[in-house]
Amino acid sequence: MSVVYRRAVRFEEVDAAGIAFFARFFNWCHEAMERFFDGVPGGYVDLITRRRIGFPAVHLTADWKTPLRYGDVANIETAVAKLGTTSATLRYVLTRESDGAHVATIEHVTVATNLDTMTKLPLPDDCRALLELHRST
Amino acid sequence: MSVVYRRAVRFEEVDAAGIAFFARFFNWCHEAMERFFDGVPGGYVDLITRRRIGFPAVHLTADWKTPLRYGDVANIETAVAKLGTTSATLRYVLTRESDGAHVATIEHVTVATNLDTMTKLPLPDDCRALLELHRST
Amino acid sequence: MSVVYRRAVRFEEVDAAGIAFFARFFNWCHEAMERFFDGVPGGYVDLITRRRIGFPAVHLTADWKTPLRYGDVANIETAVAKLGTTSATLRYVLTRESDGAHVATIEHVTVATNLDTMTKLPLPDDCRALLELHRST
Amino acid sequence: MSVVYRRAVRFEEVDAAGIAFFARFFNWCHEAMERFFDGVPGGYVDLITRRRIGFPAVHLTADWKTPLRYGDVANIETAVAKLGTTSATLRYVLTRESDGAHVATIEHVTVATNLDTMTKLPLPDDCRALLELHRST
Repeated sequence: MSVVYRRAVRFEEVDAAGIAFFARFFNWCHEAMERFFDGVPGGYVDLITRRRIGFPAVHLTADWKTPLRYGDVANIETAVAKLGTTSATLRYVLTRESDGAHVATIEHVTVATNLDTMTKLPLPDDCRALLELHRST
Repeated sequence: MSVVYRRAVRFEEVDAAGIAFFARFFNWCHEAMERFFDGVPGGYVDLITRRRIGFPAVHLTADWKTPLRYGDVANIETAVAKLGTTSATLRYVLTRESDGAHVATIEHVTVATNLDTMTKLPLPDDCRALLELHRST
Repeated sequence: MSVVYRRAVRFEEVDAAGIAFFARFFNWCHEAMERFFDGVPGGYVDLITRRRIGFPAVHLTADWKTPLRYGDVANIETAVAKLGTTSATLRYVLTRESDGAHVATIEHVTVATNLDTMTKLPLPDDCRALLELHRST
Repeated sequence: MSVVYRRAVRFEEVDAAGIAFFARFFNWCHEAMERFFDGVPGGYVDLITRRRIGFPAVHLTADWKTPLRYGDVANIETAVAKLGTTSATLRYVLTRESDGAHVATIEHVTVATNLDTMTKLPLPDDCRALLELHRST
């Protein structure tokens, strides 16, 4: 089961080559991850600001197939590729809404982290349950 | 006496109209302000992270005359237009390096603020001395 | 009649002082302006990419009253403060959704511009009709 | 032989967790790549704007070891890991200036592309010569 986040390329997200700047894709995936964590009470905001638990990236791979331009809309499908004790690997598949073209696939390994001590933590139970639910098979 | 900060337009700072995105100018002015505060021991970093004093914007005006494109370099001249008990008005004049064209003038009223309580503060002595030094007449 | 755009402060939109970075407000206003232009067939995307008409900023004023933090949501009310032959002044009033606090008011003077020649244009009829409709009194 | 680009973390490049936002690292690497291409006459600007040759990313891997905070400076060492007919793999090793800590390693596969047709091109001779010169062994 995956969660889909719909995201239009913004006016200021293109570069001097006229296509969506490659680093922007990671902003979008983070937004998709935040939407994903809406499945936990209080969401990502509460994790960060009250529970002081973050999910910094430790590893990432990205493959791009199709450039996006201003006016394009990406559908970002988020699923869980792997689950460890303290880490979760999110996989984002981006397609272009207008024609379904495969835009990019990104894998993002994050580690549950105590933001005050910056040390890793076992995945909190509610996060783990949510992640399990969206595990790709 | 003004302080000049030289800033090239970055590859990803243009928009879908092909010119530097208007909001970016404020990022550049903030960078110019940070360079300006290099005149205080520890600079802006120390103010923010150790002394916990920030300078949030309370008012801003901007006038644009000439668009910038990728490859253009702006020279940003920072001076102090006004000085109050807790506030300082910075004036940034941006010119295009290639031909000296007037790009924009931005005035930025900031208030010295205790970042823990978010209440205003008298300008710290070292900051006031620096600001006085660069007061435009 | 105004148009309201709802915008949450993003995880990466805060600065080292822990509040939404002042330049980000202009990104949000531009997003609100793009939503506003949804009232024209093809919207802002079509204006920029097909009709080659843009609305660069020539003047801007901003007043901030209340800082925003991660987790806050801004409601951005867009109305038209003034209308000229080639220019339109948009006024954005931002309030914090949680308590209705007045966050900021921004006025943004834009000029209809031929993006190929970078010369000003009379406001296109459909844009003018839309702008008139949302004129504040 | 590698090229080093020195980059301070900016005030607005941290996120609500208080560390440099992961997507920002790719902005920095792109800046490092642009500095790298200063070794070609006219640099990256000329490639993009006059020669209409770009280097979009097709694949990327990143590993993070140490978070960066506001005030930290990264030294980004750029070298060429692989060279094909149309593609070049750049490797960026980021260290923290204050203590030499390994911050991140990023590999970035780019393909020489005609920006008007968006089709791939053999690496131009001057680019290839520069890339060969900085090939890691």
